[in-house]
Amino acid sequence: MLSEDQINRYHEEGFLLVESALNTTEVAALRAAFERDCEVPGPQRITEDDGVAVRAVYASHQRQPEYAALLRDPRVLGPVRRLLTEDVYPYQFKINAKPAFGGERWSWHQDYIAWRIADNLPAPRQINVGVFLDDVDEFNGPVIFVPGSHRAGLVRDDRREGAKSELHLDPDDIALTAEQLADLVAAHGMTSPKGPAGSLVFFSPEIVHGSAPNMSPFPRRLLIATYNDITNLPSWTGEPRPEHVVLRETRPLVPLEEPFLASLEGAAR
Amino acid sequence: MLSEDQINRYHEEGFLLVESALNTTEVAALRAAFERDCEVPGPQRITEDDGVAVRAVYASHQRQPEYAALLRDPRVLGPVRRLLTEDVYPYQFKINAKPAFGGERWSWHQDYIAWRIADNLPAPRQINVGVFLDDVDEFNGPVIFVPGSHRAGLVRDDRREGAKSELHLDPDDIALTAEQLADLVAAHGMTSPKGPAGSLVFFSPEIVHGSAPNMSPFPRRLLIATYNDITNLPSWTGEPRPEHVVLRETRPLVPLEEPFLASLEGAAR
Repeated sequence: MLSEDQINRYHEEGFLLVESALNTTEVAALRAAFERDCEVPGPQRITEDDGVAVRAVYASHQRQPEYAALLRDPRVLGPVRRLLTEDVYPYQFKINAKPAFGGERWSWHQDYIAWRIADNLPAPRQINVGVFLDDVDEFNGPVIFVPGSHRAGLVRDDRREGAKSELHLDPDDIALTAEQLADLVAAHGMTSPKGPAGSLVFFSPEIVHGSAPNMSPFPRRLLIATYNDITNLPSWTGEPRPEHVVLRETRPLVPLEEPFLASLEGAAR
Repeated sequence: MLSEDQINRYHEEGFLLVESALNTTEVAALRAAFERDCEVPGPQRITEDDGVAVRAVYASHQRQPEYAALLRDPRVLGPVRRLLTEDVYPYQFKINAKPAFGGERWSWHQDYIAWRIADNLPAPRQINVGVFLDDVDEFNGPVIFVPGSHRAGLVRDDRREGAKSELHLDPDDIALTAEQLADLVAAHGMTSPKGPAGSLVFFSPEIVHGSAPNMSPFPRRLLIATYNDITNLPSWTGEPRPEHVVLRETRPLVPLEEPFLASLEGAAR
């Protein structure tokens, strides 16, 4: 349950960090599930140029029960329903493994413009939840927010000419200009939520954010689950984006009554 | 004057931050002198690919009296003489302007190996002084140190095969491997000194360091002056590096008796 102060901060700043929401046993279970999921071949698994190291995996909740349950965990789904609306479903689910010494930076952007362009999402009725699978510090490529930047709506509402791909929208294609960002940062500053593995960060689809490279010698894994209002479904005039990128199961999620791991253990008994 | 505690910390950690050593009037004078120096054409001025924005300028102290005096300022030269040896001269002087949204990251490296390869510097008898011409925070590409990493000597003592240039040693050419850095970071961690414009950071030529890109929408200017022991001069078997990169005036610097700006004003009276 979020406090009134936390709810106000989310709406004011566009994000909310909840440190160490998951305990170390739960984090270990999620890491093990990710390791297993990295072994599953398919288009949902994106590798680095070497073809071996996994950079990202989509839709792990379709294969790994820990992630299916985590999406319904009261500590995750509860705040989402409180901050957005009661009936939500997972629109996108991905785990990024930002490699040591790299992972490149992500340009400053707002998520919603990408989803409107690619999937005709009618409104910014989403919440992202970042789940730290590793400790996040200033050196391993944390997400950086411009707090409060979500309140002005979309800074740009088009995409770059000659964008790289129709299916995948690169942050570069929707990046803010230096001038746009300079104005926002002068007004609002920058901040990046950090914390131990197991921390959660809820953030708005309209908050301006970017990400630095991972300067550390260790990979850094981050799950991002995006929940969408079930009355705000995507649609396509042409080819829809792949099912592992834009999830098709849109029935509203029902919260578990206990933490995800306890729930799985209960089901196994 | 450094305290005993500061001296011990420098030797223990390989760097020492002195916050706000210079006041805002002094910083403004240094910035103005840099702006003037950016107008001076020549090989000492390195521009971005656009040929306009200045990325770095070498040897500004040869053209701008503020920088010539700063090199002898008791707050700068005093600690250098206390930490290294009494008779030092400036071996290299450069100002980097890390551009907004970029400046790329610098690979993890130790300075001394570069200087030994390029200039036959006999020993790591140098001290770097970083002078913050802008506020440095976690977002605008701060230098990151592995504290204590200077005490083990050189981690690698060769350069990469096929290095880019004989004259300019890119950090990539002498970069530590992920494994080397992982061991060091596991033992020592990482830290990056931050502070307002006018802060100074003294650091060892053997400390392992890197630098993230500048994620902010504002450029960030950093002066790095490297002092060398006058008994430790460079020599070349082939073509020496250019005079603006490796300074040839090796007479020992005499400290000013007052801060650099007051000294210049005194001289003008």
